Amino acid sequence: MRAVILGAAAGGGFPQWNSNAPACRRARAGDERAPPRTQASLAVSADGEAWFLLNAAPDLRQQIEANPCLHPRAGLRSSPIAGVALTGGDVDAIAGLLSLRERQAFTLYATQRTHDVLDANPIFEVLARDIVARRRLVLDTAISLDTPSSTPSGLEIECFAVPGKVPLYLETDAAPPIVEDGGTIGIEIRSGAKRLGFIPSCATITARLKARLAGMDLVLFDGTLFADDEMIRLGLSAKTGRRMGHISVSGPEGALAGFDGLAVRRRIFIHINNSNPILLADSAERAKVEAAGWEVGHDGMELTL
Amino acid sequence: MRAVILGAAAGGGFPQWNSNAPACRRARAGDERAPPRTQASLAVSADGEAWFLLNAAPDLRQQIEANPCLHPRAGLRSSPIAGVALTGGDVDAIAGLLSLRERQAFTLYATQRTHDVLDANPIFEVLARDIVARRRLVLDTAISLDTPSSTPSGLEIECFAVPGKVPLYLETDAAPPIVEDGGTIGIEIRSGAKRLGFIPSCATITARLKARLAGMDLVLFDGTLFADDEMIRLGLSAKTGRRMGHISVSGPEGALAGFDGLAVRRRIFIHINNSNPILLADSAERAKVEAAGWEVGHDGMELTL
Repeated sequence: MRAVILGAAAGGGFPQWNSNAPACRRARAGDERAPPRTQASLAVSADGEAWFLLNAAPDLRQQIEANPCLHPRAGLRSSPIAGVALTGGDVDAIAGLLSLRERQAFTLYATQRTHDVLDANPIFEVLARDIVARRRLVLDTAISLDTPSSTPSGLEIECFAVPGKVPLYLETDAAPPIVEDGGTIGIEIRSGAKRLGFIPSCATITARLKARLAGMDLVLFDGTLFADDEMIRLGLSAKTGRRMGHISVSGPEGALAGFDGLAVRRRIFIHINNSNPILLADSAERAKVEAAGWEVGHDGMELTL
Repeated sequence: MRAVILGAAAGGGFPQWNSNAPACRRARAGDERAPPRTQASLAVSADGEAWFLLNAAPDLRQQIEANPCLHPRAGLRSSPIAGVALTGGDVDAIAGLLSLRERQAFTLYATQRTHDVLDANPIFEVLARDIVARRRLVLDTAISLDTPSSTPSGLEIECFAVPGKVPLYLETDAAPPIVEDGGTIGIEIRSGAKRLGFIPSCATITARLKARLAGMDLVLFDGTLFADDEMIRLGLSAKTGRRMGHISVSGPEGALAGFDGLAVRRRIFIHINNSNPILLADSAERAKVEAAGWEVGHDGMELTL
């Protein structure tokens, strides 16, 4: 299996359009230790021919042009993009679908909840239903990823519930409950015995999630914030990471601690917020995560399993 | 008045994600005579401080980063983008609004028809209504473009009906009628006596449109196709330009002929489809439009009136 990180940043990207914080200024100034990153998305393929996107970031058009594996190769009109699988209905996971118009066939994989979000927004009808097939992902149920001509791609997909917060409109107080009901999902991609996990959003690491991750060859995991109170300390937001449904990298309940001792061969942070110092190659926090055996995802990062 | 072309291409951009046509291959190969272009959008400013976008292309995040005038300069969070005005509700005019989230104040200017399109898609509620003010543009009625703190920007905006086709869902036969009812609009921006026209979509040039354009200092005009049957000849589509509601550059009813003798100081093609050979600096068609006194818009093109 091959995978390419199309974008490694959280929603807003790095730099974020309205952020004048020091890290974003470094990125805009061309500092090589603070390279820009687009919003989180992964491309996976078994054969290097048919590719499947995990999430469609708002930056998708730019991401396609930056990655030759996604350029059309056949005829006048074609695309190696055979399908798109979504982990949810947030803007940073779905807006890129609007860049896949032009009546080009592919298959859209999502849970019923996420299909419902798309169906509630007529703008997504630019993906004509006679051209872009919708397929439903069911929790803990593997299906084959097929090309639009129904040729098996050699990849299998299975989604699973991940701890997340309840939607904003169901929140009742300052500390929303963490739920694991399929509102937030992770995606596992398999090719033969190889297993890849894609979890751009996760609120905490439970025993159930650990059991799912154990034995994976590669996990791309929520690296939104380094510290739970990072946004507050930087004066960027009144919300903690926990409040936003995102685990921290550090801390006793963070990702480094949660993965400690877990049998995952390779672990990479993705969905990294512009406030997270692991984006900066010369930061102490970057050194810390690398010392703990993690890598920090970057745009164009190629992975082979 | 200053203006910057953020993107000069039609919907899909250049190259287009699923086009393997020769021109798109040249762009991907880095051919300097076929430079890439993002989707049509213009930034305008009277003072170089407060900027207003005309249309929000899907590429907006990339366009902001490519143009330093749109980078935040004050505090931790800010933006010089004071407002966005829309010529319609098509994907290539509105998708970029999804990149302007993060609770940053600006004003959204559109006709009621276009506001209705946005209101029908809950995803645009990421532009929280207590932060992003909606203002209504009324045909042939000038209003001041203000900053979010209600400071006049020195610019005035007025929209006007432009010939266009009826919406797809109202089409009844192969040759949809051309209407001039406000479904398709152009935008005029004024700063003192200076007049700029932005018309990325126009089906034909009527006497009424000519009267509106006469005396303008700069017009950015629909350059979607060079020839009406271009998409058919290239095997890209069964539709003529006329069928899509776009005038051609060439021909007795085209833009070159229509503007001939019109008192417009500077005229630039924008919204140029990837099939249009004027994108290629070494084409005969490029030479022809330049000989006729036109310029071909490109990303980052700076204009001073």
